[in-house]
Amino acid sequence: PPECGLPLTQMFPPSPSLQQIQFADQKQEFNKRPTKIGRRSLSRSISQSSTDSYSSAASYTDSSDDETSPRDKQQKNSKGSSDFCIKNIKQTDFGRREIEIAEQEMPALMALRKRAQGEKPLAGAKVVGCTHITAQTAVLIETLTALGAQCRWAACNIYSTQNEVAAALAERGLSVFAWKGESEDDFWWCIDRCVNLEGWQPKMILDDGGDLTHWIYKKYPNMFKKIKGIVEESVTGVHRLYQLSKAGKLCVPAMNVNDSVTKQKFDNLYCCRESILDGLKRTTDVMFGGKQAVVCGYGEVGKGCSAALKAMGAIVYVTEIDPICALQACMDGFRLVKLSEVIRQVDIVITCTGNKNVVVRENLDRMKNGCIVCNMGHSNTEIDVASLRTPELTWERVRSQVDHVIWPDGKRIVLLAEGRLLNLSCSTVPTFVLSITATTQALALIELYNAPEGRYKQDVYLLPKKMDEYVASLHLPTFDAHLTELSEEQAKYLGLNKNGPFKPNYYR
Amino acid sequence: PPECGLPLTQMFPPSPSLQQIQFADQKQEFNKRPTKIGRRSLSRSISQSSTDSYSSAASYTDSSDDETSPRDKQQKNSKGSSDFCIKNIKQTDFGRREIEIAEQEMPALMALRKRAQGEKPLAGAKVVGCTHITAQTAVLIETLTALGAQCRWAACNIYSTQNEVAAALAERGLSVFAWKGESEDDFWWCIDRCVNLEGWQPKMILDDGGDLTHWIYKKYPNMFKKIKGIVEESVTGVHRLYQLSKAGKLCVPAMNVNDSVTKQKFDNLYCCRESILDGLKRTTDVMFGGKQAVVCGYGEVGKGCSAALKAMGAIVYVTEIDPICALQACMDGFRLVKLSEVIRQVDIVITCTGNKNVVVRENLDRMKNGCIVCNMGHSNTEIDVASLRTPELTWERVRSQVDHVIWPDGKRIVLLAEGRLLNLSCSTVPTFVLSITATTQALALIELYNAPEGRYKQDVYLLPKKMDEYVASLHLPTFDAHLTELSEEQAKYLGLNKNGPFKPNYYR
Amino acid sequence: PPECGLPLTQMFPPSPSLQQIQFADQKQEFNKRPTKIGRRSLSRSISQSSTDSYSSAASYTDSSDDETSPRDKQQKNSKGSSDFCIKNIKQTDFGRREIEIAEQEMPALMALRKRAQGEKPLAGAKVVGCTHITAQTAVLIETLTALGAQCRWAACNIYSTQNEVAAALAERGLSVFAWKGESEDDFWWCIDRCVNLEGWQPKMILDDGGDLTHWIYKKYPNMFKKIKGIVEESVTGVHRLYQLSKAGKLCVPAMNVNDSVTKQKFDNLYCCRESILDGLKRTTDVMFGGKQAVVCGYGEVGKGCSAALKAMGAIVYVTEIDPICALQACMDGFRLVKLSEVIRQVDIVITCTGNKNVVVRENLDRMKNGCIVCNMGHSNTEIDVASLRTPELTWERVRSQVDHVIWPDGKRIVLLAEGRLLNLSCSTVPTFVLSITATTQALALIELYNAPEGRYKQDVYLLPKKMDEYVASLHLPTFDAHLTELSEEQAKYLGLNKNGPFKPNYYR
Amino acid sequence: PPECGLPLTQMFPPSPSLQQIQFADQKQEFNKRPTKIGRRSLSRSISQSSTDSYSSAASYTDSSDDETSPRDKQQKNSKGSSDFCIKNIKQTDFGRREIEIAEQEMPALMALRKRAQGEKPLAGAKVVGCTHITAQTAVLIETLTALGAQCRWAACNIYSTQNEVAAALAERGLSVFAWKGESEDDFWWCIDRCVNLEGWQPKMILDDGGDLTHWIYKKYPNMFKKIKGIVEESVTGVHRLYQLSKAGKLCVPAMNVNDSVTKQKFDNLYCCRESILDGLKRTTDVMFGGKQAVVCGYGEVGKGCSAALKAMGAIVYVTEIDPICALQACMDGFRLVKLSEVIRQVDIVITCTGNKNVVVRENLDRMKNGCIVCNMGHSNTEIDVASLRTPELTWERVRSQVDHVIWPDGKRIVLLAEGRLLNLSCSTVPTFVLSITATTQALALIELYNAPEGRYKQDVYLLPKKMDEYVASLHLPTFDAHLTELSEEQAKYLGLNKNGPFKPNYYR
Repeated sequence: PPECGLPLTQMFPPSPSLQQIQFADQKQEFNKRPTKIGRRSLSRSISQSSTDSYSSAASYTDSSDDETSPRDKQQKNSKGSSDFCIKNIKQTDFGRREIEIAEQEMPALMALRKRAQGEKPLAGAKVVGCTHITAQTAVLIETLTALGAQCRWAACNIYSTQNEVAAALAERGLSVFAWKGESEDDFWWCIDRCVNLEGWQPKMILDDGGDLTHWIYKKYPNMFKKIKGIVEESVTGVHRLYQLSKAGKLCVPAMNVNDSVTKQKFDNLYCCRESILDGLKRTTDVMFGGKQAVVCGYGEVGKGCSAALKAMGAIVYVTEIDPICALQACMDGFRLVKLSEVIRQVDIVITCTGNKNVVVRENLDRMKNGCIVCNMGHSNTEIDVASLRTPELTWERVRSQVDHVIWPDGKRIVLLAEGRLLNLSCSTVPTFVLSITATTQALALIELYNAPEGRYKQDVYLLPKKMDEYVASLHLPTFDAHLTELSEEQAKYLGLNKNGPFKPNYYR
Repeated sequence: PPECGLPLTQMFPPSPSLQQIQFADQKQEFNKRPTKIGRRSLSRSISQSSTDSYSSAASYTDSSDDETSPRDKQQKNSKGSSDFCIKNIKQTDFGRREIEIAEQEMPALMALRKRAQGEKPLAGAKVVGCTHITAQTAVLIETLTALGAQCRWAACNIYSTQNEVAAALAERGLSVFAWKGESEDDFWWCIDRCVNLEGWQPKMILDDGGDLTHWIYKKYPNMFKKIKGIVEESVTGVHRLYQLSKAGKLCVPAMNVNDSVTKQKFDNLYCCRESILDGLKRTTDVMFGGKQAVVCGYGEVGKGCSAALKAMGAIVYVTEIDPICALQACMDGFRLVKLSEVIRQVDIVITCTGNKNVVVRENLDRMKNGCIVCNMGHSNTEIDVASLRTPELTWERVRSQVDHVIWPDGKRIVLLAEGRLLNLSCSTVPTFVLSITATTQALALIELYNAPEGRYKQDVYLLPKKMDEYVASLHLPTFDAHLTELSEEQAKYLGLNKNGPFKPNYYR
Repeated sequence: PPECGLPLTQMFPPSPSLQQIQFADQKQEFNKRPTKIGRRSLSRSISQSSTDSYSSAASYTDSSDDETSPRDKQQKNSKGSSDFCIKNIKQTDFGRREIEIAEQEMPALMALRKRAQGEKPLAGAKVVGCTHITAQTAVLIETLTALGAQCRWAACNIYSTQNEVAAALAERGLSVFAWKGESEDDFWWCIDRCVNLEGWQPKMILDDGGDLTHWIYKKYPNMFKKIKGIVEESVTGVHRLYQLSKAGKLCVPAMNVNDSVTKQKFDNLYCCRESILDGLKRTTDVMFGGKQAVVCGYGEVGKGCSAALKAMGAIVYVTEIDPICALQACMDGFRLVKLSEVIRQVDIVITCTGNKNVVVRENLDRMKNGCIVCNMGHSNTEIDVASLRTPELTWERVRSQVDHVIWPDGKRIVLLAEGRLLNLSCSTVPTFVLSITATTQALALIELYNAPEGRYKQDVYLLPKKMDEYVASLHLPTFDAHLTELSEEQAKYLGLNKNGPFKPNYYR
Repeated sequence: PPECGLPLTQMFPPSPSLQQIQFADQKQEFNKRPTKIGRRSLSRSISQSSTDSYSSAASYTDSSDDETSPRDKQQKNSKGSSDFCIKNIKQTDFGRREIEIAEQEMPALMALRKRAQGEKPLAGAKVVGCTHITAQTAVLIETLTALGAQCRWAACNIYSTQNEVAAALAERGLSVFAWKGESEDDFWWCIDRCVNLEGWQPKMILDDGGDLTHWIYKKYPNMFKKIKGIVEESVTGVHRLYQLSKAGKLCVPAMNVNDSVTKQKFDNLYCCRESILDGLKRTTDVMFGGKQAVVCGYGEVGKGCSAALKAMGAIVYVTEIDPICALQACMDGFRLVKLSEVIRQVDIVITCTGNKNVVVRENLDRMKNGCIVCNMGHSNTEIDVASLRTPELTWERVRSQVDHVIWPDGKRIVLLAEGRLLNLSCSTVPTFVLSITATTQALALIELYNAPEGRYKQDVYLLPKKMDEYVASLHLPTFDAHLTELSEEQAKYLGLNKNGPFKPNYYR
């Protein structure tokens, strides 16, 4: 039996599970070729928003770039290599500075690099990756390289590539195939260029969304069988792996990074606690003090949003379907209501349910003038935006990501990001959070690459608890936090190894 | 396979688990006959403290009571029954009023009674119980009776019985065997009287600590085999059942009420959030504002304590051994330190670790004058109180539960409850919290009593998720909380039954 | 013109002022001889509650004391003096320990004593005092003595004297005339004994409530004229001085300690923030999480209560008459309502208005079963308790300070302290808060005693800002707080003296 | 004596006052002709930042505008008037929409307009104004017009004019002279055009900074004498009026809007509570959770900043020079330190003191890599930015308003807004807050214009308390807040008029 990882299927027994909850309606679509834009937004991958941050910050713009497709250009880096395809190799310097800034807030990866001076745990590992290509990812990729890996990379999203970062990576010799504004055809072309190199059999896959995995699985089945491990970050990608596994077609061990406790807690609770405020401010400049808000759903995301708004002086109502979360909301000091009870009086409506049609036209009709409506939860299904596309309503784009929807009587609803995820579209994600995920990805690759024969079977695994704890410990120095160590006597008393793991696997 | 309950052994896989952590050092003692006083304090059973509340409140005292042992008295209730043994049947009225007050804050049990007018889910169920005998338990027992059960009851603690409540129960016909201040011999005599009645084969056991279960198991093995189910509330009792199960000797399905999510979250997080303040104020009248406190351990209890003190204007430091909890403490705004870093400067030291010797003599020596030391975590092992029993230190009892330990140079440490649990000794537990546990116990009895053949095997189970949710939902009306219902379409989208369960079993 | 004190009349211009607000209805009663019990409760003197704390703590009781009136006893201290009149000189040791414990939390007074080793700023000052006689006051009195004063003392309240403390004071040679349970006649007899000693012309008065001042003013007008200064702590006493001043009859400068910023902020905001929780818990054991509470009035007291309850997870509504405070409540995240809007749904009603009939019978009739009603604000007028004394309602005393008022349909209202101040009756006051007031009193005495001719006229003054700041600075070491000092250059830039005062007098 | 306003000189007695504190070093510069850029930043006028908000939002840019100076253009509005001078009259529509959006969040002004349909309290009032020209100001100006006033307007800042808004005002017939990017010469030319119109004697001045007042005072002394009243918003302008008054040269009553309680509390406490988070996020995307921050100064601004950061999970240290504010910081749960004690460990340094050289080079040298430094307090003097302009340090502009200052060893300090006010430069101000100030300005104009002869003398006044309360009450409907009314009996008891004022003038 696996010494330090639990098969996901054991962790997620056949009772209705989180995965099933979140993906139920996607099953029928699974075999459809994914559309890059629509589906991608299903992924709760936070990396994307760093683009916004970047672009809002940069005085440097692409406006002067020529319109030639990168596929039609001949580019070489300063060492003469042209095994890459990016927008403009000349943007290297700017991208390098962005990477250096990111390095400062990714201490765990830098610590791994330092360790790697002695041992190269990924020595010889041929890794293909498909993620957002941002400064933070660049730090990850260059860390993998420092650990001994040979990497080839494509973008998991047609819009999110930071061209300057891609340039900086290419200049350092990485084979990267990505630019901002790829067509769908470009997208798959890049992935294929990344994978399909004469005599290059990838051993590890680092994926975000499952497209790279899917491409190899479908197009290069023999290559797929020789893969040693897959590391997948996104909800969507994990779901696809889980379905493969259920269908008995997953012939490679895969590591589910998405459900590791550090990622869950950080991404959902702590991060949303900050990004809800940031997203609302940047788009609407609303004053929080005294505002009435309703938060639909009191899971981790709803908990974070509610806590933040309350802390800033808003009056928060909560809706829930689950009596246990409902009781938590009560104990935390929020009135638990049905949406219809408060819809006429609230100033802000936030959805965090993972459900669909949580806010429907009838609710929107009853909102008061100026009410802000946004989605922090899942995809773009929570608010029934389609119901607002009717002739009697006027849409007015007042800022980027901000629409006023105007009723015949003059009432305006302020709709953010057209109902897509607010924190992806309208706020940034701190590098520190991305660091946790990136470190988990790196460790997952190391674990799978070095695991002795038989530790992992053809299944989807969570990262061993001990590694979760290791990721966390690598981030403690950022806070100048000093961990207490168990004495021998105490460890014995508790029946624990002094070095952990300290909690059972299911601990959340 | 069990439709709605997971075997505990599946939930707690053989990796180092919570149970093992907490009980590691108790194993060797397991076969020793438990001493009523010492061991009992291991049980995190909150009911006990209600006694303190009661006794501090009551102007009514037992001082005038005669000193005759109840075992030597002849008592009859007004209907002529004498199948009970209590302190004084005349105290009925006072006890009845206490029960009535408790009923007002136990809405879920009262709701069960109302339902029971139509159906009697415990019709004919012969139940033996062994719990603290307080007003709140009385509401539970009388609810079981209303649901059709025939009950016989003993006390699980030699000190905690509210004599007036026992009187009120006896007057209504319950066969109760308990009084405040039993000797250890009395304790087992009461349990035996409770069980050993000619021609009365108990079907269900409701236990708190495992003594009743153990007594039947050892003394009446044939009776034990005919038991249909055991419901156990305490950590200690659950541990004992788990060991029986491991040894292959548990021939009866048992329900672990202690680990249900509602109990865990309420007892540990929300309850401690309030009781830390209450316990400190009642004993020391300390002003929280501006005080520096260190909280050892950032599990649920530590989280509750830290949040409360911070909210009241204290500056809180946290110590942890687990990097994940440590990172949570950081993100929640607490400096993570080693105890030795802050021990000289803090005004309050609180242990919440489940560990032993967390605060040792060396720490105590370095504390500043007036420092308050208390334990919210586990047993009485966390603070090494024994190390303070040395000739050069003077102990001065300044109030009930409050000792000044005085160093030769005049420095005083304020030690609360001699290092035992502060919230059991020095604060009260709201009836509302007890109501959640009591309702869970009642539902567990109903589930086990009515489960079809084969649903439960000879193992330790958690209450099915759906019942957890049902318990929670019965407590929502207290908060005038309105749950949202899924539409058919939404339920389908989420792959859920409209009526729950809404989360997987492992959800915490 | 006064260099460092502002005449109160200038600070309180003839527009409707705080004083007038709070005392409007007392004017007509001013000439009536005060009844010790009723009127005394008007005084927001927090010292009283320390009695409760003490008595609840002490296992030591007076029950064995003989019933002889102290006035009829012959008592001598160990040095042979009998110029005192107390309950029992033998209780000295217990009282001394209480004083010693209090000394540990009154660092500022102890610091003054240390200074006094060199200078004796009260050398020769004959001081008569009339305050609660508690361990904390004893620390103050003994500090005055250490500073050079000769003191004689009486109690300002017939119930609040800690007999043991009085004994300890008498043993050390203080002429104290006070015991717990004085009759009204005893009360005035004690005051007179305190003042009327052949050849002893008091120079300074330290008063709490104005009775001592009034007695001298009426009975010994010649003595009154020779007084050098009066220091008054209570709202009531300040009001009486203010009226004397308005009537042109105040021939002595008086210092209003009650309105100093440190006392106001500590007593009202920070102290109530803690005592509302303490008072509710000790009386009702109510769980705060999820409870709905309405706080009537959003002044400092209301702000403290609301913040505390919100921090503990309650949902708080606020009522206000003043739009500015109302807007603050909104910005702080509380729904501003009329009482009638929420009266049916709330679990807790708290009055903090300074007004009368804020909660009337009509409100009480509409409250839900189990609703807790209490007063944190002013006197006993805020809740119309008289309206509950009607035949159809049943009163049931369930605990000390807790009544259930029962409606014919069985509904119970939980009324605390019969509508008197909750924090005086049901919670304790930390010594640290009393320390601030006591230090202010001591400094006010020093200032008045040492002020050069002409600095203070026959008026009521606030303590000079600089002394307020000094009091605050003496309490900072308790928190290990390190003040920043201005550089010469910065002081010049700000136009300030490096040593303060740092803010204008009116700053709050 | 003035019935409803207190002369400021009485409120601000000759002891070192707030004004003196903040302006001490400006005295010598008073007679210097102000430089538009440097000095203007002294003004704590929050309106400016709305520009940033606007410009970041608008897709509409000025880039295509011609470079002709507005002074050289001939422009006419659609009604043929050309008594204005702005950038481009064609931008009317965009500006009108901005104004309409602002109207929605300025309910109090809209309520005044509604009232004005019956009465015209400013009928015939000739008003000259000099303020930031933004959508919010436009709502104010158009409200004044609706109330009967004839207005002419200039900009108080050469950068802050929203050209589109100016266009919309001009199109409606307002004589507005302002554009974004005026030269200093343009600035005074605009003011003069505004004032100097044949046969137009202004009666009222609405000023922000005192430039308009100063211009009339110096250039048109006869016109100045006929002015009926001045309303001044900014600290700087109030200070200048106060000096005029002290010099006996203020021959016109003036109203100090800056110090009204609503403005102070909103602008400083509540607003900074939100803008500190917003400003930090927009510039640095920093994650607040777990960060260590030091806030220098614990006045209203410091209180707001500290509370917000603590609420978001940061660990906050406070520095103070005033022991009273220091004690408040302690009671609020912040460690009070000297800057040097924590400078090595903190991640964020925020100045809120009103002082100069609070953070000096020595502190900056000791900060850790990545430390963020910003100023929320006063001008640009708090951080000694000049000390960073030395050869060995490299400055790198990484984003708008964000500089990295790089030490020879590679350490980077993140300096925001070059030490100028963060909330003016890097965050927006909610319209709701501007609404409170604007309403106060409108009421101040009405009061001064309608006051009977003799109510106001040649002095600086605060708005009468009752009007403060009225401003507050006009903003309560935004929060759906319901004020309680006093009964006749209660009003009598409190000695208050049922309609207020409810607090004395000095109440804060």
